[in-house]
Amino acid sequence: MKLAGRDEFSIIGFLKSRCGSSECLIRGIGDDCAVTTIGPGEVQLITTDLLTEGVHFKREWIGLNALGRKAVTVNVSDLAAMGAEPRFLFLSLAIPDLLTIADLENLLDGFLSACSGYGITLAGGDTCRSASGLTLSVTAYGVAAEAAWVGRDGAEVGDAVCVTGTVGDSALALQQLFSGQTPEEQLLQRHIDPTARVEVGRRLAAGDIPTAMIDISDGLLGDLEHLLSASGVGADLKLDLLPLSSSFRSALTNNASLIDLALAGGEDYELLFTAPPSALPMIDDIAASTGVPIGRIGSIVERHSELKVYGPDGVIPLPAKRGYKHFPETG
Amino acid sequence: MKLAGRDEFSIIGFLKSRCGSSECLIRGIGDDCAVTTIGPGEVQLITTDLLTEGVHFKREWIGLNALGRKAVTVNVSDLAAMGAEPRFLFLSLAIPDLLTIADLENLLDGFLSACSGYGITLAGGDTCRSASGLTLSVTAYGVAAEAAWVGRDGAEVGDAVCVTGTVGDSALALQQLFSGQTPEEQLLQRHIDPTARVEVGRRLAAGDIPTAMIDISDGLLGDLEHLLSASGVGADLKLDLLPLSSSFRSALTNNASLIDLALAGGEDYELLFTAPPSALPMIDDIAASTGVPIGRIGSIVERHSELKVYGPDGVIPLPAKRGYKHFPETG
Repeated sequence: MKLAGRDEFSIIGFLKSRCGSSECLIRGIGDDCAVTTIGPGEVQLITTDLLTEGVHFKREWIGLNALGRKAVTVNVSDLAAMGAEPRFLFLSLAIPDLLTIADLENLLDGFLSACSGYGITLAGGDTCRSASGLTLSVTAYGVAAEAAWVGRDGAEVGDAVCVTGTVGDSALALQQLFSGQTPEEQLLQRHIDPTARVEVGRRLAAGDIPTAMIDISDGLLGDLEHLLSASGVGADLKLDLLPLSSSFRSALTNNASLIDLALAGGEDYELLFTAPPSALPMIDDIAASTGVPIGRIGSIVERHSELKVYGPDGVIPLPAKRGYKHFPETG
Repeated sequence: MKLAGRDEFSIIGFLKSRCGSSECLIRGIGDDCAVTTIGPGEVQLITTDLLTEGVHFKREWIGLNALGRKAVTVNVSDLAAMGAEPRFLFLSLAIPDLLTIADLENLLDGFLSACSGYGITLAGGDTCRSASGLTLSVTAYGVAAEAAWVGRDGAEVGDAVCVTGTVGDSALALQQLFSGQTPEEQLLQRHIDPTARVEVGRRLAAGDIPTAMIDISDGLLGDLEHLLSASGVGADLKLDLLPLSSSFRSALTNNASLIDLALAGGEDYELLFTAPPSALPMIDDIAASTGVPIGRIGSIVERHSELKVYGPDGVIPLPAKRGYKHFPETG
């Protein structure tokens, strides 16, 4: 039996059932970050992400500077999703022989400029030759007050479902690249140089606003399903409340099926969270003061893990592909 | 200009000069672990290591269970080298399509059994497809009292140079594998399933014994040179004090040039440390109570970074290749 056909979540399940526990480990495998106790009243949040050539990126489509930036952003986004303040990160690089010194400096320049932008410090790492493609492995950690970090498991019936920024832009750019088109600059930037919502995540968590939060890396519906499953609730979303950029809307007028990219495309690195409706004014304040739009797209309902999206004529069929799978079925 | 010809240390130099700093970061790039403050009187030590197929291992020579174990050991050894108590680790895996579920479970079984042996808990990670070989990236955390951790930069003139266990066994096994021979079981085990010297490292550090410490991953001389360079001192070693296993000694009787493998072979995962001669009785006590031999192989002298090894007829020429280079010169 080949590994193809198993998605990464069953591997996580295997590890989760076998990995043991520890007194200081408040949250282990299965959230955006692990959470461990450190000092009195403070916790540490840790996340790790691997970017491999030919799977997560193609060098024809993303420059090395942008790739370095993105390697930071995808990790910092996991910290943001739990309300942490970024502190340190570690970079391991497997470097193919064909990479020049100029290439490498370009990659590291991008990496360090993103670190500087997020206020996170490179504290260590490892480098080695790669016999094949370029691989970047980043581990990032942040801190939060013990009472302030947010998991994906606290959503409650009646909560509003909210999302920052816009969804679908990155996936639309990727689809256009795949089909040989040149994406609009604004869409392309959302794909190659996304922004982690650190300040919004921290402000939300510090205000004790979200009951559950996750970042959108696998796609809106896929990540919402992770949150619903962890929280043991369901959700009703309204299609016309999905936050879409003007570029996305104009593409949508020519091809209505593109809406699936907003629902399930992935790599938005926006924050998806639930909060009681009473918190909506505070959420508006945070949106106004950070300049990051935050929209309500639906509500949490009493229905285990089940998700419905309402269009103008009632419940719409969900895209079959929800959540990015690194190991697609090959039959 | 290709990257070939640059060793990994110049990449580290580039990053070190550019990575910025942070108040909580006591030690950044350039030691076995980064050291950060956490609670009052306590520090956290973090290390990361990447293992890539075709560079760090060949699957013909190491079973997946042993590979899983080794991925833990090489990281825990870095914690041991700074006197830390292992706490948590994170595993990222890039998995080629050809790996079966049974292969993967075998790998993870080995990984988790090693975690259990070292008392370290898997707290998170990432998994993805690999378009080429298998890659494991591990980040490990430990803790130590703020006053007790040991860097590689404190060696002082007059200190004894000490090493745990025996050196050269792993490199001898690897050389035999390369040349198509079947290594003796004991040698092979030292290569495929080495042991990190956690207890010795902690006991030494807790007793405030080592002035500087490093683990031997690149080879005795290469790692000693890192320690000497960081400490700004030199060392005189005595060849006849090198701790060699009986298997290594018997191979040496047939081929005297094998001594280079003990001096520069790498992957011993023994601890190399310096300590004042007055501490030698305490070191003997730790060796006796842990069952890990610790031998004195030389002394620290006032001579910047320069290393001499004395054989029966005076100073011997050092092996040209010292310290494992992932990016060998290709001209």
